[in-house]
Amino acid sequence: MVESPRRQQIEDAASALFRERGYAATSVRDIAKALNLQGGSLYAHVASKEDVLWSIVARAADRFNREVGPLAANEAPAPTRLREMIRAHVAVVTSAQKDAAVFLDEWRFLSLERREQVAARRDAYEAMFRHAIADGIQTGVFCAVDVRITATAILSALNGIAAWYRVDGSLSPDEIADSYADLFLRAVHEPHFMTRTIT
Amino acid sequence: MVESPRRQQIEDAASALFRERGYAATSVRDIAKALNLQGGSLYAHVASKEDVLWSIVARAADRFNREVGPLAANEAPAPTRLREMIRAHVAVVTSAQKDAAVFLDEWRFLSLERREQVAARRDAYEAMFRHAIADGIQTGVFCAVDVRITATAILSALNGIAAWYRVDGSLSPDEIADSYADLFLRAVHEPHFMTRTIT
Repeated sequence: MVESPRRQQIEDAASALFRERGYAATSVRDIAKALNLQGGSLYAHVASKEDVLWSIVARAADRFNREVGPLAANEAPAPTRLREMIRAHVAVVTSAQKDAAVFLDEWRFLSLERREQVAARRDAYEAMFRHAIADGIQTGVFCAVDVRITATAILSALNGIAAWYRVDGSLSPDEIADSYADLFLRAVHEPHFMTRTIT
Repeated sequence: MVESPRRQQIEDAASALFRERGYAATSVRDIAKALNLQGGSLYAHVASKEDVLWSIVARAADRFNREVGPLAANEAPAPTRLREMIRAHVAVVTSAQKDAAVFLDEWRFLSLERREQVAARRDAYEAMFRHAIADGIQTGVFCAVDVRITATAILSALNGIAAWYRVDGSLSPDEIADSYADLFLRAVHEPHFMTRTIT
């Protein structure tokens, strides 16, 4: 979907407000005010507050898929693939932090139909992680973990970064990504395949 | 703090509503209605909606501390201690799921002063995990992980359980707790200390 610059500004302002105050506590008037617009004139661009939330959630989901999908589809060995997927997920969480936080925390305020769509997309996304883990087990490089629990644990931990990451913090996105990737690759590796030196 | 039965009913009803709709979208009238009370009569028991949120957050934090604190303080070797702490944390998340979810998702709607108190309590709680990890590194049973990132990753993953656990799901709280404990103990263990058989 190609968006007008104005529409994108609206989504950016709404994303910041939804993250800060929560969706329910943010009014269309608040979004308009952040853009120096009259409340009414916002409706030339968006149908409703929920419509804006839906756009933010969709663009966040698109972004995760765009960055992680190609890595999940490539034929690298499972450990390499899982590492790259974790790194790409962290890169999205840290570079599109507001959208990621709104996607993760506020999607429950969407209508039932849209929530079902989000749940399906999240399940398909998580399936890419389950697949990489299952592939590693099958090829004998990962130990026989519970695939579903492990994928969920990894994504919960990675998504948690959206709540605490600071651009001015002591760790760069790359350092955070490497730490999480190291941690979870050790968690799933068969011991005799542990070749990465921990320093 | 000893609570009156009525006060506890109010907190239970509010916890369910805050979790379902979010704090900002729940009114005092909604809470009263869930208890078949008049909105006004609720104020005989609570000073404000935020006061109820604060009580729920405090009782959740108390519960985590009460269950995990003694395990963190005992002198068991770091792997045993960390395993028991993870298991106890999962037990609280699954048995006091509504309170845990409200604590984790809605605390940001508290006043600044109360948010600072919650942040301090959460940091002290997380410090117990950092301490167990640091102790394992010092005694040579854990590899040299980043203590802060590892504690944060573990707690993010465990807290994520509040979002998906179902009493009628296929995994019992004990099975979930064991899976997460196994996963994170492998993640931090020095390979030559990996004595637990993965089946």
